[in-house]
Amino acid sequence: MAKVLGAGDVAAVVRAHGLERTLDDLIERLGDALAGFDPDALVTPLRDGFHYDHPQVGLLEWMPAMEVGRSIAIKTVGYHPANPTRRGLPTIMATTSVFDPTTGALVALLDATLLTALRTGAASAIATDVLARPGAVVLGVVGCGLQAVTQVHAISRVRRVETLLVSDVDDAVVKGFARRTAFLDRPTTIVPTGGLEDLLASSDVLCTCTSVEVGAGPVIVDGAHHPWLHVNAIGADFPGKQELPTSLLERALVCPDVAEQCRAEGESQRVDAGCLGPDLAALVKERNRHERSRDQLTVFDSTGWAFEDLVAAELLLDLAATYRIGRDLELQAPNPDPYDPYGPLLW
Amino acid sequence: MAKVLGAGDVAAVVRAHGLERTLDDLIERLGDALAGFDPDALVTPLRDGFHYDHPQVGLLEWMPAMEVGRSIAIKTVGYHPANPTRRGLPTIMATTSVFDPTTGALVALLDATLLTALRTGAASAIATDVLARPGAVVLGVVGCGLQAVTQVHAISRVRRVETLLVSDVDDAVVKGFARRTAFLDRPTTIVPTGGLEDLLASSDVLCTCTSVEVGAGPVIVDGAHHPWLHVNAIGADFPGKQELPTSLLERALVCPDVAEQCRAEGESQRVDAGCLGPDLAALVKERNRHERSRDQLTVFDSTGWAFEDLVAAELLLDLAATYRIGRDLELQAPNPDPYDPYGPLLW
Repeated sequence: MAKVLGAGDVAAVVRAHGLERTLDDLIERLGDALAGFDPDALVTPLRDGFHYDHPQVGLLEWMPAMEVGRSIAIKTVGYHPANPTRRGLPTIMATTSVFDPTTGALVALLDATLLTALRTGAASAIATDVLARPGAVVLGVVGCGLQAVTQVHAISRVRRVETLLVSDVDDAVVKGFARRTAFLDRPTTIVPTGGLEDLLASSDVLCTCTSVEVGAGPVIVDGAHHPWLHVNAIGADFPGKQELPTSLLERALVCPDVAEQCRAEGESQRVDAGCLGPDLAALVKERNRHERSRDQLTVFDSTGWAFEDLVAAELLLDLAATYRIGRDLELQAPNPDPYDPYGPLLW
Repeated sequence: MAKVLGAGDVAAVVRAHGLERTLDDLIERLGDALAGFDPDALVTPLRDGFHYDHPQVGLLEWMPAMEVGRSIAIKTVGYHPANPTRRGLPTIMATTSVFDPTTGALVALLDATLLTALRTGAASAIATDVLARPGAVVLGVVGCGLQAVTQVHAISRVRRVETLLVSDVDDAVVKGFARRTAFLDRPTTIVPTGGLEDLLASSDVLCTCTSVEVGAGPVIVDGAHHPWLHVNAIGADFPGKQELPTSLLERALVCPDVAEQCRAEGESQRVDAGCLGPDLAALVKERNRHERSRDQLTVFDSTGWAFEDLVAAELLLDLAATYRIGRDLELQAPNPDPYDPYGPLLW
């Protein structure tokens, strides 16, 4: 039997458990998983995918992760920037398949669209909690699409955010942002794209989560900022994508979520390999040591890690079991004669 | 809406359409697809996977295929040789996910366990039909597990098989084979593993479909055979696996299903790259030319190609639509505000 959770089921689980509690549990569980992270017990091959310009610009990637002897999760994730305007669908849609490594059986399939946004937020919250100064109150946001909501939400769980400065190249998107984050009850100032310099100068923490195209970056122009600025750079996740200016990266402590992937796809493409800071697991494992960087410029280079997806899927499946949500489907079945492919035809 | 077909649904589709008709349709559709195969319109990255010895020896691979602008299918396939004896499950279990390349949405999920066996048979039938002499009547089978059934069945659709010579290291498996293939009504002689020399000498067509372990091959000892022998080598699908002796490969025309993968995982590991024969698509495209090889020793090196899985999944989904079988699940859903990850929580 496989547990199948569609988008509606995932929403029902989160409603039953409470959105904020789900996000807090995810931040905690991901933090614990990172603290106990054993590189010998986890295998996350570099993600690969199809990218194409026809019939629309798009990308479909597979992100496999295995906790040796315990669980295998493969997330397939699409990035189709025309979805919102042309189809009423999110840019990023994902599903995660979970397998039993003893038999290879598919044990669960879940829509991972909301989970992807939540785990990306949770990862930023964890990096921000280590690297941002405790008194951070001004949060800048460049790029106000779907990911921005969970960035702001998750960061507000680890820092007392008092003011949001937000900007987007699309007026409608930035105007809708205050409505989408109204539940957070934080004063939100819209900064015109011409005023990004002010936004950079005023932010204690900055999140860049744009759909910048390959070769079109950086989105941020280098300029004055607080010496303690912490940036969560979310948008660069493909060779040639860049949100932050190289000059800023060069004077920052750049912490990749997973170094090899960030060097290929993230802001770290423009950082000498020898100059990269600790990765996300190292940040958590040696938290006390890395908290010393709170007064300097730091960048969390978030490309999205299959391990985060595995942890998020496991949390959601645990909650689904608790609240008895989801469908049990016999996707694969035992076979009275495992050597007879046609046995199932006689059922 | 996504169409979901579990193992029982797939069986119901095949029952409704007829097993033999389904197999014939698959052989025909795969043949047509290969004849029209355009390497610029199809992308099949080398498969990758997890392999492990704990908690049991196993392998879980992902096999993505994209017909540009048309369809994306990703098969995940497990190979867990302890499944039959310890769990009553097939060694090879698979699921295929089909995506819409316009939006990245998952449009179908189906159990591909039976389909994998059928498409592997269909590929051998196509290669056999080009490369085996028309009068072939004696079919040798070494390794009588699940794949052997569809090998024999599919080959019997393209050649008038009159006699089966079968062998397996496991007595129970070889004894059950006659029962599993009783529907074919062919006289079946069990050859003890000590008599493989006779089996090789007597066969017009030979299928090797063993679970030979890495480094343990070859399974066949070189010896006398008909000059026109055609071999379908199914079992080698991993670095270091080998069913056929190198000396036999060296004097044969070896035709890979997909050359790069066969050089990495198949019998072609032991063939100089420059000496490889035409691949499966070339065999079909230039059928008349390659039929001239029918009087010589030929080997079809079948490692299993993601394109075959895509074609098989499409056929099954078409038949499922015809017979109105399967379940429609809202796995992913449109979002009234595609920029609001929490929109679905309000439903």
